[in-house]
Amino acid sequence: MRPIPPGAVAVIFVSQRSAADPEGYAAAAVAMEAAAAAYPGYLGLHGTRGPDGFGVTVSYWVDEAAAQAWRDDAAHRAIRDRGRDIWYDWYDLQVATVTRAYDWKRV
Amino acid sequence: MRPIPPGAVAVIFVSQRSAADPEGYAAAAVAMEAAAAAYPGYLGLHGTRGPDGFGVTVSYWVDEAAAQAWRDDAAHRAIRDRGRDIWYDWYDLQVATVTRAYDWKRV
Repeated sequence: MRPIPPGAVAVIFVSQRSAADPEGYAAAAVAMEAAAAAYPGYLGLHGTRGPDGFGVTVSYWVDEAAAQAWRDDAAHRAIRDRGRDIWYDWYDLQVATVTRAYDWKRV
Repeated sequence: MRPIPPGAVAVIFVSQRSAADPEGYAAAAVAMEAAAAAYPGYLGLHGTRGPDGFGVTVSYWVDEAAAQAWRDDAAHRAIRDRGRDIWYDWYDLQVATVTRAYDWKRV
């Protein structure tokens, strides 16, 4: 992923999966990541989920307008409804504006 | 964790663990989480790491000054040096200001 520039928007999604419908969830996760990546202003996504179903995913957008356009995407809205119906026990979501960023890699 | 208020600072730490020193890393992670939690202005932490060593951790602070005080903590600095020496292959870190937040829980 390219470095995240100051002024970018980070959407932090912290969630607890239910035990329900692992196949449906996995298929939707792949589809939504591909759909997000095709959206204008998408900078990237980092996420992981443990075997206990607890996950943290951060998607990065060039600005608020880009993040909000993806939020308002009709297919994304429908999938979020399904998430509340079936796939999640709870989630916390924060939208935040990046003020500074650092990358480090072993050389 | 209590809800994250607008204006709070989220420190997003995305990292790839090396295979080295799992016991030392685990002990340091527990110690650093406890030390952070004792710092003024700490709001909470969410994180998870997969079996592949890839992890996403977000710590939340009441404001920039609180996040920077923890960044400047001497023990935390020493542990970060050790992280670059031994525990991580790479990491990305972003500091971001929360503009809005949502919580949802199945009722």
